[in-house]
Amino acid sequence: MTSQTITPELEALVERVLERKLDERFGELQSQLAAIERRMSSCERQATAERATLLVFSGEMDPLMAAFIIASASIAMGLEVTMYFTFWGLNALRKTWTFKGKTLPEKMIAALLPKSVGRLATSRLNMAGIGPAFFKKVMDDNNVEDLPSLIEVARDLGVRMVACEMTMGVMGIKREELVDWCDYGGAATYLEHAADSKLTLFI
Amino acid sequence: MTSQTITPELEALVERVLERKLDERFGELQSQLAAIERRMSSCERQATAERATLLVFSGEMDPLMAAFIIASASIAMGLEVTMYFTFWGLNALRKTWTFKGKTLPEKMIAALLPKSVGRLATSRLNMAGIGPAFFKKVMDDNNVEDLPSLIEVARDLGVRMVACEMTMGVMGIKREELVDWCDYGGAATYLEHAADSKLTLFI
Amino acid sequence: MTSQTITPELEALVERVLERKLDERFGELQSQLAAIERRMSSCERQATAERATLLVFSGEMDPLMAAFIIASASIAMGLEVTMYFTFWGLNALRKTWTFKGKTLPEKMIAALLPKSVGRLATSRLNMAGIGPAFFKKVMDDNNVEDLPSLIEVARDLGVRMVACEMTMGVMGIKREELVDWCDYGGAATYLEHAADSKLTLFI
Repeated sequence: MTSQTITPELEALVERVLERKLDERFGELQSQLAAIERRMSSCERQATAERATLLVFSGEMDPLMAAFIIASASIAMGLEVTMYFTFWGLNALRKTWTFKGKTLPEKMIAALLPKSVGRLATSRLNMAGIGPAFFKKVMDDNNVEDLPSLIEVARDLGVRMVACEMTMGVMGIKREELVDWCDYGGAATYLEHAADSKLTLFI
Repeated sequence: MTSQTITPELEALVERVLERKLDERFGELQSQLAAIERRMSSCERQATAERATLLVFSGEMDPLMAAFIIASASIAMGLEVTMYFTFWGLNALRKTWTFKGKTLPEKMIAALLPKSVGRLATSRLNMAGIGPAFFKKVMDDNNVEDLPSLIEVARDLGVRMVACEMTMGVMGIKREELVDWCDYGGAATYLEHAADSKLTLFI
Repeated sequence: MTSQTITPELEALVERVLERKLDERFGELQSQLAAIERRMSSCERQATAERATLLVFSGEMDPLMAAFIIASASIAMGLEVTMYFTFWGLNALRKTWTFKGKTLPEKMIAALLPKSVGRLATSRLNMAGIGPAFFKKVMDDNNVEDLPSLIEVARDLGVRMVACEMTMGVMGIKREELVDWCDYGGAATYLEHAADSKLTLFI
């Protein structure tokens, strides 16, 4: 019986046996990991962004106030916020109205719509136009901003506002009637954002 | 000192030491992987499907138009879409109305509801029934589909439409008054879909 | 050629080679796992809780009925449910009204608001106040609960109800006018819940 020397042959043997065993075990492991990666990628695709997307359909003072309060609070929470204005909601972005180049029914709808965002009716208790004045008084007494201020606050905080071009067509509203700082988009733009949002509301 | 031969005993030794070490290390690794799997499963359960679920409560022409435009745009985005019609939203699925077998209050509600989807009022600017005609004219001038066409497009694209049976009870509406191609369901069916959707709106 | 003995030196060699190889392979693996863990944590942060958060803006009988039916059905589905009542939705939590300590416009709004939840108008077919009676009759005939019962059922099932303090200010409503079992919160509380919910609706 001799004392043993560590020959290169012995080292080679050890390595060879080792590699074989490791390959077996790691093979299994790698397919486990590949399965986990696939499931993870599918989770990632399904996760929604830190984003709120509001579809604003209503054009009265009170739902618009609610919409802008939610938008500003969402920004404060760290969400990225886009508001899409459609149908009556386009009122919130109106600067003025024009009759030039409009068909008769378009003119009649334009004339019936409120001239600007400071003149919107409330959806309830309108009381022949007195309702909004009450709201403003109550809001002043309670230190709540009125609608034009809420819109300004939302803009300053970085809320993106998009006018729906397709419903501008339906309502007969032209670009020159809307504020010059809004963006334009359609249902597809809205859907792309909404489907990737933590919070989506129809207001 | 002799040159070394690779004996079966030596190979056995190498394998034995190897297995012991691998078991130690892989033991740790497997519990790491098991923890990852548990977290992944919980992520997967929480992920929502590529689906939009619209709860349509309003029955006027304009919110219904918005609902069907969103539904069709969602399908175009690759989402699976289900619309649940409840309360006034059931108007969108009305074919006709019947008085037979109804109690008096049911008859009175039926008589007050619009006869068919082509006759719905707008929610604003209804102007004694003239409003909808204006909208149609403006839409024609701007190449926007009217409501019955929007419903047909949504159907053709594969939007699933479900009438809420419980509110049919509340509104006194019978199955024979609704179109024969809609499905029927209740709040539980709605919730199951809605809780597993990327986009949920109450319109 | 001698028969080989397993000496301590040989064992030490095997272990040394083994550790080196394992460190190489596991090093790679651990960085793979760390990458997976990072992606998983981001998925987990993005996943929403098994929760429904309803923002109730409307104050008429029919949308409120819809809201409470959805809330109770969500609880039945295993979701945790919070309803935030804002603007006209606060009607659902009204106990009575008070004029003491109110400014004149606050008093006038209070007087115009319905006295209690049993007296709410429907949003359509109100017919000078006859509408709600019809609905109740139809509901009785069809075994559907009326609004006060729907609220009680939701409470019993564990739906949490929160009055929006900021809009209480806007509407001039005081705490003593609301039921004593509701909670109070603001837009920030709502947003925190809503951004972490499977289902969010604006009703």
